[in-house]
Amino acid sequence: MSYDLWYWDGIPGRGEFVRLALEAAGIPYRDRARENDGKNHDGDSASLVEDLQQPRAHPPFAPPYLVADGMTIGQAANILLYLGEKHGLAPADTEGRLWINQVQLTLADLVTEVHDVYHPIAAGLYYEDQKDEASRRAADFRANRLPKFLGYFEKLVHADSGWLTADGWTYADLSLYYVLDGLLYAFPRRMLRIAHAYPRLMALHQRVERLPSLQDYFNSPRRLPWGNGIFRHYDELDPLED
Amino acid sequence: MSYDLWYWDGIPGRGEFVRLALEAAGIPYRDRARENDGKNHDGDSASLVEDLQQPRAHPPFAPPYLVADGMTIGQAANILLYLGEKHGLAPADTEGRLWINQVQLTLADLVTEVHDVYHPIAAGLYYEDQKDEASRRAADFRANRLPKFLGYFEKLVHADSGWLTADGWTYADLSLYYVLDGLLYAFPRRMLRIAHAYPRLMALHQRVERLPSLQDYFNSPRRLPWGNGIFRHYDELDPLED
Repeated sequence: MSYDLWYWDGIPGRGEFVRLALEAAGIPYRDRARENDGKNHDGDSASLVEDLQQPRAHPPFAPPYLVADGMTIGQAANILLYLGEKHGLAPADTEGRLWINQVQLTLADLVTEVHDVYHPIAAGLYYEDQKDEASRRAADFRANRLPKFLGYFEKLVHADSGWLTADGWTYADLSLYYVLDGLLYAFPRRMLRIAHAYPRLMALHQRVERLPSLQDYFNSPRRLPWGNGIFRHYDELDPLED
Repeated sequence: MSYDLWYWDGIPGRGEFVRLALEAAGIPYRDRARENDGKNHDGDSASLVEDLQQPRAHPPFAPPYLVADGMTIGQAANILLYLGEKHGLAPADTEGRLWINQVQLTLADLVTEVHDVYHPIAAGLYYEDQKDEASRRAADFRANRLPKFLGYFEKLVHADSGWLTADGWTYADLSLYYVLDGLLYAFPRRMLRIAHAYPRLMALHQRVERLPSLQDYFNSPRRLPWGNGIFRHYDELDPLED
């Protein structure tokens, strides 16, 4: 059996949480909105737009969603909960399973805050139409929210294993890597200035970057580059001094 | 065994997602930050502030959290996942269990958007310090986000049962009620104008309001009134016409 992943082409976005888990575990999947199947052209995700119109018992509110075993599963954290249970990408006991889900949900909260840095007034408006407000929200994010989240996640990494559990990586470790990588892309000046305070996070970032099972993916066109997705880089939102 | 729920006193907030499930299922719990145990006074949640300082293997990023079976479980959706599995407050099969979790996560997304209507620039600033931006964000919320979410949830309610599943209420039905009740409090003019388009949601709201197992709770001081929490009412954000 193979999974069908559905997510917007052109940005890593929240689809990348799922891709990293599938790739690191070597689980076959199709990235449907990126397939050159006569429908998708130039990142228009035409097949996804069409698929979203299908009537379903359990429709997703938004991509990503995974079609698996006849089910449609939406919400990135929910997809990972499913994959984690089915493929052993998280502890199997109740406490460990809930803990990894909890970390994933907190990462999702951080990603939503990052999204809103560029869209403080309306998700449907361009960044350029809310630049002044974004500048103020970014200042608050850099000064308050970013260190609060990073300080929290830093404490969660085990000193011995270097991962969120004592026994090696889980899907939430991959997600933590992804969020750190996005922050390093979006706010490189700020991140470089404060990185010394988060040695375990920076080491985890390197550890995932070098995971043998991800090297093929990282060097393939399946991996989308950063750009104008959820994580964005604007010089004016990452000033040298503040 | 009894559960310890920890959440800020004074607002229903995200703690109410958990309270409604515990109360509707008749599960004993202590609402620790609201107990008159010599620590908490005038909604200062002193015992919660103290408890948050405790070192823990699995610390929560923020309240609510539930202490149960020697575990500390954070993130409202994660707490409900646990309670749902343990007390039968959601379907037991994989598809149904994931679906109810998915709906809960989408409700959590909506609640975050409501929170940000009043805090578009910074969660740490007062509404009064970001009123102009809140006015613009509220206009977008009323015009675009609110109908998008409500239209989605409306389609999820079964015509026959009146609930999210064919078999009666789940914890996500209680959460859906709570979010609708909050929207009716925060945006009464807008909600009354558009309610006719969401007959199943409005009927579900009434159905939970009348659940026999919740009557004792609704008439007790355990239920906190709406106020300046996540859902707020400001006349200027809910104009008669727009």
